[in-house]
Amino acid sequence: MGKNRLEAFSDGVLAIIITIMVLELKVPHGSDLDALRPLVPVFFSYVLSFVFIGIYWNNHHHLFHSFQRVTAGIMWANLHLLFWLSLFPLVTGWIGEYHSEAMPTALYGVVCLMSAIAYTILQITIIRSEGSESMLARAIGSDMKGRVSLLCYALAIGAAFVEQWVSDGLYCLVALIWLVPDRRVEKALGQSDAGKGTHKP
Amino acid sequence: MGKNRLEAFSDGVLAIIITIMVLELKVPHGSDLDALRPLVPVFFSYVLSFVFIGIYWNNHHHLFHSFQRVTAGIMWANLHLLFWLSLFPLVTGWIGEYHSEAMPTALYGVVCLMSAIAYTILQITIIRSEGSESMLARAIGSDMKGRVSLLCYALAIGAAFVEQWVSDGLYCLVALIWLVPDRRVEKALGQSDAGKGTHKP
Amino acid sequence: MGKNRLEAFSDGVLAIIITIMVLELKVPHGSDLDALRPLVPVFFSYVLSFVFIGIYWNNHHHLFHSFQRVTAGIMWANLHLLFWLSLFPLVTGWIGEYHSEAMPTALYGVVCLMSAIAYTILQITIIRSEGSESMLARAIGSDMKGRVSLLCYALAIGAAFVEQWVSDGLYCLVALIWLVPDRRVEKALGQSDAGKGTHKP
Amino acid sequence: MGKNRLEAFSDGVLAIIITIMVLELKVPHGSDLDALRPLVPVFFSYVLSFVFIGIYWNNHHHLFHSFQRVTAGIMWANLHLLFWLSLFPLVTGWIGEYHSEAMPTALYGVVCLMSAIAYTILQITIIRSEGSESMLARAIGSDMKGRVSLLCYALAIGAAFVEQWVSDGLYCLVALIWLVPDRRVEKALGQSDAGKGTHKP
Repeated sequence: MGKNRLEAFSDGVLAIIITIMVLELKVPHGSDLDALRPLVPVFFSYVLSFVFIGIYWNNHHHLFHSFQRVTAGIMWANLHLLFWLSLFPLVTGWIGEYHSEAMPTALYGVVCLMSAIAYTILQITIIRSEGSESMLARAIGSDMKGRVSLLCYALAIGAAFVEQWVSDGLYCLVALIWLVPDRRVEKALGQSDAGKGTHKP
Repeated sequence: MGKNRLEAFSDGVLAIIITIMVLELKVPHGSDLDALRPLVPVFFSYVLSFVFIGIYWNNHHHLFHSFQRVTAGIMWANLHLLFWLSLFPLVTGWIGEYHSEAMPTALYGVVCLMSAIAYTILQITIIRSEGSESMLARAIGSDMKGRVSLLCYALAIGAAFVEQWVSDGLYCLVALIWLVPDRRVEKALGQSDAGKGTHKP
Repeated sequence: MGKNRLEAFSDGVLAIIITIMVLELKVPHGSDLDALRPLVPVFFSYVLSFVFIGIYWNNHHHLFHSFQRVTAGIMWANLHLLFWLSLFPLVTGWIGEYHSEAMPTALYGVVCLMSAIAYTILQITIIRSEGSESMLARAIGSDMKGRVSLLCYALAIGAAFVEQWVSDGLYCLVALIWLVPDRRVEKALGQSDAGKGTHKP
Repeated sequence: MGKNRLEAFSDGVLAIIITIMVLELKVPHGSDLDALRPLVPVFFSYVLSFVFIGIYWNNHHHLFHSFQRVTAGIMWANLHLLFWLSLFPLVTGWIGEYHSEAMPTALYGVVCLMSAIAYTILQITIIRSEGSESMLARAIGSDMKGRVSLLCYALAIGAAFVEQWVSDGLYCLVALIWLVPDRRVEKALGQSDAGKGTHKP
């Protein structure tokens, strides 16, 4: 029962984060196509962040299928994850406004990296609570996807100061890693539970 | 169980979209009737978008009655729908501020059209997952209402550049198509489930 | 089941309305007591609207205990209520900024009145659906509280143009009518269901 | 059942409060490190308030495990708590912008103090409803943590006008009191219910 409320609260926060990001798309001052032009990069940064939050929501959903007992540690590890995700509207707005600049691109990566680390901490906290023989521990395995994501984010933060577009590419790459194979694995295995696929890359 | 959380998350996002649209109704600078005047077109665009989101929430509600198994495809088709609906506050604010201009009127139609396409994709994804003999496939039938809506939106986008008020009329027409017959069909058939009517125009 | 989702959606919208009203309390420009002074009337209008939305949420809660079958009519009557309630942040912000002016005070009353009418329509829609012998029809009885509220709002709209503070008094009076006797009736009757009291003044 | 909806509504409001606070972190005007500098104090005030709301959500969660019967008194005491918590975005934004000033620091403490008092009132209301032999009455005991928090807030309000950094220290101290021992107690007792620990310091 406690888990349901933790899920509901997380869903609420994620739903608000994903929706208030759109407030960065300010109503244009002017009524022609030119007035829309400054919104284009903000729009694309919004799409990217929408996908990221969507992936987190999806994975969070599956993660919470995998355990029963909510400890204080899990609750705070979950709030810690929500904290870093709550910074997405800020960095999405910043990268959207200054899309070819090093610092906003790097800070976007920092929030991605910290969110990914917070998610990893949440996974570890749950596994510690459930035991290394738990369903989750087996489902995650070596967590290749998670490791690759962390690496990509770290590279992207560095690359922002050298070749800014490389960072943009790395962010899109991570989004694709989590989006694309999910469906392929799911279909291949013919699993009825859409969730399991996400943890077996 | 997974479906419940998908519903709850969608409800959360839709509730936030429908509510933050009101933030476009800025507190007037002045305390007389004149200060309210610029809010009038924003108010009407808010009413229209409120009705559209209400219709989507209603139909989404019924759509989710019609299946059991949540696949990754359904989840992403649902997020895709929420993405386009999340752009309603932006285009509502824009059409409200520049209500007689071609471009904001057309962009409003684009978001309507993309939302309707996203909804159709979600329907198709569910039917593919459930099978062509499923309850949903039979309930939708030829989906006349859905087709007429798509056509009206496409016409409205074009009409915005010729006679802007024709587009406004088409948007209101689509809203009426979904609002009015629902009740008539429901009463006629005496169905206890309010939902079914929406899929049998 | 459909009712649960309608409740959850309404709760979501009401929770967002009650919370985004606080955004009208803008962070002061300055760090001394003088900087807080312009916030004082906004604060009081926020308190009043918070209480009004709280009362609506409370009554909505009890109203939804009283029926089982969700019809399309109930759904749209409910959305109609949420629409008028969603205008509270706007009029709260306006009356807070121009607290001694006739027009903002009157418009606040208009939104109160329309919300109360929408609530009455929702009640009637439910009673029509459930039958005049239903639990709700008996619980409401002559709905004295509801009638007095409608009258007070109508008077307050007119009074705003003559003696503005009379309107403020009437708004507070309605809030008190719904707040105070609830508890007295509840204690007197020793009812375990906190809800019933609100419909038997 | 009524309790579930009260919980869900409270969760919704808390989720929105915790998320809209991030809107005070305005997108910087500029793309270099200097542009981020004014955000640093706002960021730290955001972290502190995020932790406070997290603690309230956690304790609220456990408080609602401890009773069954929702009275009108509990409902209004709960709304009263939500009211004071809803002021966190305002004072967080103010203390973030004027972080070394007395008045914002003191007002932050006032909102903390009023929230803590509102929480105490909610506890007392529940205990009165459930009886002094109830699970909650025993779990809270002398409520040492709650008393120390109230004292710290009162001291911090006064200290803001003498040595402003002492107040900051006291706010962090209260956050630590609620964060740290929770886990220690929980582990020591090996309790499966993460909640109980929070009420037995």
